[in-house]
Amino acid sequence: MDPISQPLIEDIKDDLMPLIKERRAGALLAVLLDLHPADIAELMAITGDEDDQAYIFGLLNEPELASAVLAELSTQVREPLVEDIPRAALADLVEEMSSDDAADLIQELPTERVQQVLDEIEEEELEAVQPLLAYDEETAGGIMATEVLAIGEGATVGDALELVRTKGEEYDPFFYVYVQDSHGRLQGILSLKNLVMHGPETSVLDACNREPVSVPVTMDQEEVALIFRRYDLLAVPVIDDKQRILGRITIDDVVDVMREEADEDIARMAGTDEEEFDETSIRKIVFYRLPWILASVAGGFLAGVLLDYFAMNMALGISLVAFVPMIMAMGGNAGSQAAITMVRLLALRKLNRSEVLGILWREARVGMFLGGITGLSMGVIAYFWKGAWYYGVVVGASMAMAVLVAASMGAMTPILFKKLKVDPAIATGPFVTVSNDATGLLIYFGLAIFLLRFFSGAN
Amino acid sequence: MDPISQPLIEDIKDDLMPLIKERRAGALLAVLLDLHPADIAELMAITGDEDDQAYIFGLLNEPELASAVLAELSTQVREPLVEDIPRAALADLVEEMSSDDAADLIQELPTERVQQVLDEIEEEELEAVQPLLAYDEETAGGIMATEVLAIGEGATVGDALELVRTKGEEYDPFFYVYVQDSHGRLQGILSLKNLVMHGPETSVLDACNREPVSVPVTMDQEEVALIFRRYDLLAVPVIDDKQRILGRITIDDVVDVMREEADEDIARMAGTDEEEFDETSIRKIVFYRLPWILASVAGGFLAGVLLDYFAMNMALGISLVAFVPMIMAMGGNAGSQAAITMVRLLALRKLNRSEVLGILWREARVGMFLGGITGLSMGVIAYFWKGAWYYGVVVGASMAMAVLVAASMGAMTPILFKKLKVDPAIATGPFVTVSNDATGLLIYFGLAIFLLRFFSGAN
Repeated sequence: MDPISQPLIEDIKDDLMPLIKERRAGALLAVLLDLHPADIAELMAITGDEDDQAYIFGLLNEPELASAVLAELSTQVREPLVEDIPRAALADLVEEMSSDDAADLIQELPTERVQQVLDEIEEEELEAVQPLLAYDEETAGGIMATEVLAIGEGATVGDALELVRTKGEEYDPFFYVYVQDSHGRLQGILSLKNLVMHGPETSVLDACNREPVSVPVTMDQEEVALIFRRYDLLAVPVIDDKQRILGRITIDDVVDVMREEADEDIARMAGTDEEEFDETSIRKIVFYRLPWILASVAGGFLAGVLLDYFAMNMALGISLVAFVPMIMAMGGNAGSQAAITMVRLLALRKLNRSEVLGILWREARVGMFLGGITGLSMGVIAYFWKGAWYYGVVVGASMAMAVLVAASMGAMTPILFKKLKVDPAIATGPFVTVSNDATGLLIYFGLAIFLLRFFSGAN
Repeated sequence: MDPISQPLIEDIKDDLMPLIKERRAGALLAVLLDLHPADIAELMAITGDEDDQAYIFGLLNEPELASAVLAELSTQVREPLVEDIPRAALADLVEEMSSDDAADLIQELPTERVQQVLDEIEEEELEAVQPLLAYDEETAGGIMATEVLAIGEGATVGDALELVRTKGEEYDPFFYVYVQDSHGRLQGILSLKNLVMHGPETSVLDACNREPVSVPVTMDQEEVALIFRRYDLLAVPVIDDKQRILGRITIDDVVDVMREEADEDIARMAGTDEEEFDETSIRKIVFYRLPWILASVAGGFLAGVLLDYFAMNMALGISLVAFVPMIMAMGGNAGSQAAITMVRLLALRKLNRSEVLGILWREARVGMFLGGITGLSMGVIAYFWKGAWYYGVVVGASMAMAVLVAASMGAMTPILFKKLKVDPAIATGPFVTVSNDATGLLIYFGLAIFLLRFFSGAN
């Protein structure tokens, strides 16, 4: 994690692209060797071409650099690239990686290759990596690394400094030495600052923080991220149910989790897959988006049948139809405001039952106000547009009701999805939005017909 | 930044709420003193009540703790609270804060109080804070702190260690000692690991990283976050145009920026304000959402007028109207897929002109495929539903065109907004979605009428 020199790859890529396209190995390699591995990975992604990517990767003749670049690549770029690397060479690259990066890469391999690669890597790395393959990818165990610097509780600050000097280079990024008892149970954490501030003869137990935050190996990664953010942490030890240290999670892993989770939520809202943000193939993008579009065809069809039925079979005349786009636009809008807000609150906080009920009740009241205000303004528009006062009442009242129902449904669906163990963010996508449309139309026409009959009877 | 002991406040708040409501100062304070300041701040937010918040804050009799809690509070909770703190007391609290937190708080104060507080705080803190007030909040200068440990290039590792021992406690979180020349220009950075790994007689210039990443004080905070994420950084020095060190940005600030930016984008997509996620007042939530709802009234009205005009004045019969909800749902859907994806790409990457054009062209082709597939399926539905083959052609062709246009507009609007220095994420909100609806209807009816005339002439 040594900081590197500028400039960003974005500023020099226009000079590099011709070198890549013309396969000018010497000139290109001279530049690549000065770049940070993350920049080389970004450059490969920018080319958007598998042959170019394989060519650039093939130039990296130092295993350490090649391994670092491989660890930085996105799954989209890495998968096809790794397919063509022979198993022994791949095992060498995996051995250079930290255990969490190695486990991520191995989990992407086709099943038949996993065992091949595990057979080739050396014992020490195998012991570090294999336990990680068993954890759920979205838990603390799935994002931790097993490389921890641990020292017995009887040691001194001088011993700990010696440990850092001999082993510290291998453990990057490095934040803490963990103090453990003879059963491997976490007793405290020692920062480098603790080490520098205390004399070498001090006992590590006196120098360390004896009440560190730790997370259980089964904790969901979103909750891990919440803890890092709340307490401005840099690293936490991961422990099993007997308080034994299994590994550690560092802030850079958590930054990646935050990015992933935001990508996922935003992709659901868009009605696509988060993979799309790294994707350049038109076929795949269409493939990601099409299911959502087709879901909205289904919802739209339902609304269309309703519209057709009411518009064709009622003697009420066509004027009601003029307000359909407004009903749909506003219902959809009020519904997604409530749904997106709810999903965001679920992502940022741990809410208990009474808080959830409190938020639902708040949303219902917000829906009433929004419905009331929009209903009133629509009523006024309807009156002036269509000239009959009862149109205003009918349109206003049904609009108010449609907005209220859409907002309440929008707030409830994410909660319901969460209960059903479905990603709540799906509730912000097209499917639910469109089913709001149909409900809105049903309310609008139902109420309008009822009220119009009532008024025409009264007139 | 010492890690703290569990449990999270969420797990114990149900026990604390009665103590707060019943104003049991002694019992409450005993618990509060064991909590992390971030948990106390969260507890105050959870109460959702200004009186309770003022009561809890009033219990915190240690200025250091009160100041740390104040720094952690969200603007919504902090603003009303700070109003009631006398200027001298407020100045004392500000003095305990790091320069960046102090500057954030001062910038929230009403104009007339800013100078009052600045007059009260002591010289040293004033010098640290005042320069920060001049920078744009969303730049490197706006998020940096001015507390940096710097050492001359002639010093040794032993000197640097001595500096850390005497001053390190004040500089929290602490990552690097910056090496500067006699003009204050950045020459390198020294991590604690560098210090521990080298003997005390080594020159700092030999021990340090001489090519560190630094950022100019004017850099946009989103770009700073991109650099941190790309290179897994913990801290960067902030420099002026003569390479002189002005301050430093640490990873915890960047995590906050990432959270803010995600909140902002998601709020735009929802059609509300990011402040809403911390808001409990119904009046304010309605106030945040209403403008977007009213914007969609405007768009819906436009679509309604179109629908009314075409439906009333054409002899084509009402069957075309049945497909209106599908046109609107699918156009809206395809438009937001493209818009949200584009906004996400703009947020995650630095794109140059040719890449933007490439993405637009890709989106147009994706739109063609999506439009083609949905148009075909709609055509089949229309044929079987309405029984006339030319309905199928008309509905399918206009649907395809509407989806293509919506996807292209969805991709282009964020780019256009960015050019106009408007937040591109607004393009994902209701206003633009709804204007897509009107365009979709116009295309649908226009093309349908043209084709139906053509076919009925041909028949």
